[in-house]
Amino acid sequence: MSGYRFYQKASAAYHSRPNLYNLLVVSTVSGGGLLAFSDRSPLRTAYADAGADVTKKKVVVLGTGWAGTSFLKGLKDPSYEVQVVSPRNYFAFTPLLPSVTNGTVEARSIVEPIRNIVRKKNFDVQFREAECYKIDTQNKKVHCRSNQENNLGGTEEFTVDYDYLVIAMGARSNTFNTPGVVEHTHFLKEIEDAQRIRKTVIDCFERASLPSISEEERKRILHFVVVGGGPTGVEFAAELHDFVIEDLAKLYPNLKNYVTITLLEAGDHILNMFDKRITQFAEDKFKRDGIDLKVGSMVTKVTEKEISTKERATGKTVAIPYGMVVWSTGIGTRPVVMDFMKQIGQNNRRVLATDEWLRVEGCDNIYALGDCATIDQRKVMEDIAAIFSKADKNNTGKLKADDFKDVINDIIERYPQVAIHLKKQQLKNFLQLLKNAQGNDELVDIEKFKLALSAVDAQMKNLPATAQVAAQQGSYLADCFNRMDDCEENPEGPLRFRGSGRHRFKAFRYKHLGQFAPLGGEQTAAQLPGDWVSIGHSTQWLWYSVYASKLVSWRTRVLVVSDWGRRFIFGRDSSKI
Amino acid sequence: MSGYRFYQKASAAYHSRPNLYNLLVVSTVSGGGLLAFSDRSPLRTAYADAGADVTKKKVVVLGTGWAGTSFLKGLKDPSYEVQVVSPRNYFAFTPLLPSVTNGTVEARSIVEPIRNIVRKKNFDVQFREAECYKIDTQNKKVHCRSNQENNLGGTEEFTVDYDYLVIAMGARSNTFNTPGVVEHTHFLKEIEDAQRIRKTVIDCFERASLPSISEEERKRILHFVVVGGGPTGVEFAAELHDFVIEDLAKLYPNLKNYVTITLLEAGDHILNMFDKRITQFAEDKFKRDGIDLKVGSMVTKVTEKEISTKERATGKTVAIPYGMVVWSTGIGTRPVVMDFMKQIGQNNRRVLATDEWLRVEGCDNIYALGDCATIDQRKVMEDIAAIFSKADKNNTGKLKADDFKDVINDIIERYPQVAIHLKKQQLKNFLQLLKNAQGNDELVDIEKFKLALSAVDAQMKNLPATAQVAAQQGSYLADCFNRMDDCEENPEGPLRFRGSGRHRFKAFRYKHLGQFAPLGGEQTAAQLPGDWVSIGHSTQWLWYSVYASKLVSWRTRVLVVSDWGRRFIFGRDSSKI
Repeated sequence: MSGYRFYQKASAAYHSRPNLYNLLVVSTVSGGGLLAFSDRSPLRTAYADAGADVTKKKVVVLGTGWAGTSFLKGLKDPSYEVQVVSPRNYFAFTPLLPSVTNGTVEARSIVEPIRNIVRKKNFDVQFREAECYKIDTQNKKVHCRSNQENNLGGTEEFTVDYDYLVIAMGARSNTFNTPGVVEHTHFLKEIEDAQRIRKTVIDCFERASLPSISEEERKRILHFVVVGGGPTGVEFAAELHDFVIEDLAKLYPNLKNYVTITLLEAGDHILNMFDKRITQFAEDKFKRDGIDLKVGSMVTKVTEKEISTKERATGKTVAIPYGMVVWSTGIGTRPVVMDFMKQIGQNNRRVLATDEWLRVEGCDNIYALGDCATIDQRKVMEDIAAIFSKADKNNTGKLKADDFKDVINDIIERYPQVAIHLKKQQLKNFLQLLKNAQGNDELVDIEKFKLALSAVDAQMKNLPATAQVAAQQGSYLADCFNRMDDCEENPEGPLRFRGSGRHRFKAFRYKHLGQFAPLGGEQTAAQLPGDWVSIGHSTQWLWYSVYASKLVSWRTRVLVVSDWGRRFIFGRDSSKI
Repeated sequence: MSGYRFYQKASAAYHSRPNLYNLLVVSTVSGGGLLAFSDRSPLRTAYADAGADVTKKKVVVLGTGWAGTSFLKGLKDPSYEVQVVSPRNYFAFTPLLPSVTNGTVEARSIVEPIRNIVRKKNFDVQFREAECYKIDTQNKKVHCRSNQENNLGGTEEFTVDYDYLVIAMGARSNTFNTPGVVEHTHFLKEIEDAQRIRKTVIDCFERASLPSISEEERKRILHFVVVGGGPTGVEFAAELHDFVIEDLAKLYPNLKNYVTITLLEAGDHILNMFDKRITQFAEDKFKRDGIDLKVGSMVTKVTEKEISTKERATGKTVAIPYGMVVWSTGIGTRPVVMDFMKQIGQNNRRVLATDEWLRVEGCDNIYALGDCATIDQRKVMEDIAAIFSKADKNNTGKLKADDFKDVINDIIERYPQVAIHLKKQQLKNFLQLLKNAQGNDELVDIEKFKLALSAVDAQMKNLPATAQVAAQQGSYLADCFNRMDDCEENPEGPLRFRGSGRHRFKAFRYKHLGQFAPLGGEQTAAQLPGDWVSIGHSTQWLWYSVYASKLVSWRTRVLVVSDWGRRFIFGRDSSKI
């Protein structure tokens, strides 16, 4: 609150120059001063009061990543009492994590304290820096644990009650149970990971500079291995290559020729979720840069100094000495979420499932979003009889195409795969789909209806585990929370085909805005909406501007942009701190 | 080398536009390109060659703090082969460390890689990131140890040969053997210390925000104790107060009234090396700010949650609960230096002693500077007979005042305490000092000469353990090294009173340029040369500009200044990273 700072300054001015007093009173009364005074009033009883207001619904948010933060930013209804539980007291702009590993951007430039984000709210948001280790759906409580140094008291446990629970805890790195991965490799999910990788890269160069190190050992130490050819792994490999070529080669001139970077990908291509042109460009660029790209190479074991892979082409297992391994192969479910899934009967799933409204299946008032959950889309074929009978108001069993017209929009909204199918089949509308199945018959029975829609469910796809999806889910859910009562009275969602009435809200729809794959050397590939592909230096500038504009606050925006500028002028710093 | 980067860009341009080739050749031949090519040539044999050039004298520098770095920056004579050994691959601008603890300045803004500092040299400087754990004067070797993670090889030991050894390892924090200090308090000497303190401050606030923490515990956790009323302790306390008031109070509004900051000082006053006006101002300001200042309070024990002090006024021992303690009471000798002192017969000293030329007493070709050593100034009275006999060319035993005139300048240069004494006694010159002892006699014998100089040695003072002293010593020594051969032929130092001829170099003289004591709230006190005192906001601006100009490189300068700007605009960041 700038009011407070103003008060401080004004107060200091008053002490040194009492004749300013009148001016001070005027300006205090006129604005900021009121804020300042309320800010100064002691709130010693705040803790005793917490939870005493029974009229307010308690919302508990677990996690401060993209999903949780975007939910918090969107939440505007002051009738909730919000508690946020997360082991990190900040939001991190994770797409820039690979840049942090090499110092292109500083860690602090991409984080924003969560308290800073929520303090402008017109209602109370309590933040607790703790990890949720158990969700108790029976008693509507989450069990939390905070861990500080011993002299602060060590481990502290407490519970938080909820009326609504928003699970946005993200995921863990997936090791596929490969032995040695947890012990010997670096993940790249958290700020701390990126900082640790940065130190380790410098460690490798310093170690290799010692006079007693053998030639062979020097080669091993300077062998950097990246496992996983997704956008994060590719970007990290590219950034590391730039760092070595542009900065470290100058500071460690004798070591330049010992450095190798290897990228291991189990599949046939890197960046396989992107357009083929992008994959091709990236593979060619890596070849030119001298990055050793090995596809069809599955890691079977990591030991202290060697990484073993099974090569699909030869079927042989190879052990390669390495200095540092970065593991970036995908995500898995966190233990606490696994435990929660058992509790609510989702044992046989690998990922927590929600419906299209982000409600956890099998629970009341529990929502899950971001990387910790997937939307279990409803299949048309599961509901096909119910849909037919909604259209068949008179229970005739046979309907004209026209009879469907009241429910068409609801079908398309409830089952988005229908629209995708229409588009892919180049059909003008739903009626045309029916017509194709109808043949020459004028009437449609349930069997024909099934036939018409039989191929539709094949269009269902899980959403990617990206920041974009999580952020959109967060703001969607906040919007629902803001209009909870309104929409209870005036539901805006599609027809409930199996029940009666309408769904309260429209279902969540992901809008893909494109995805970047930075490739190093000031070149970036981008897959834009409508399958546009853009590659090269200009895309790098697009990347710069999109990321700068997406950053969470003006502070981070200014810092990141000045980090980029600093990198252009001074290069990256190689101090081991 | 920008040449290389230019080559990269030019090369990329060539690949995309071959018609640029001619232009490229022209510009390559004309300058940067040559650099680029030499940069690209493999240097695989660099390690095998190391130490092979027998004509070059091997200089080994231990440490990359103020003394070591300033020596390296000053060294220009390419006839040395230099190896630098330090556990830190960077130089840190330590006067800004207290600012780092609260995020006023970022850690990375005040460090500069040592390789970046030395790579512009016209001769080879090898840096080894390792700790020297033993100096072997017999075989002229230093034993070093590097420690990286296990997969890089763990502990690595090696030795480095020297012809000249420059010890600039700094000091450790002095605990005065107070139990519990090492285990439970934070020092403030290294970058890592400052980073850890920053995290712990946020930890305290997050911990205190947990709902299960009792009122009493909350008070304890938010009790910050600073031990030591020197400039570092005072500045840290002031910075912490600003951080709490200006930034944390906004983010943790409920906690503001629980925070206490206590400054413990064993002596009667804080900042006791400064002018009384500064001490008074600082003590008054702390009182106004609500910082609890306890003088005459000696810490006797620190446990996990309590710090015990003995109060001089009451003689009683008090135990105070605390959340974090920062220990900043002075410096002690490092174990490796202790061990070295035993080896060379300095067992009964507390600090490594050098002569006025920074040569370690009892050693050949070993120099020590900065906080790890003190200059053991020669007493006039020790040499009094030798001095007299130098003046007494004809061995008469009785001299006229005039007979001294050939040696007066040498006396004053060799024994700086003489000049201080003259100034303090408001004597015009040395002859007047003699005259006072002479009485009515025209001739001076050895007894009268002794009488005249008897009070002089009382003026000797150890130099303070500051960055300023260390930096001046480093550049003094570099200057000596640069002119080693010249000065061997044409010695420029004072007469050797006990030996024959002259000293090769002038002795080291410290030139005090003033000292700052930042007091928080944009106020700073400064003691300038000539005992000028300046306090207040304008001094803060002097502080800003002096520190900005003293920073080691343009990169750090730009970064620190932009950190200051960022702090003014956005406040300090409270993310726990």
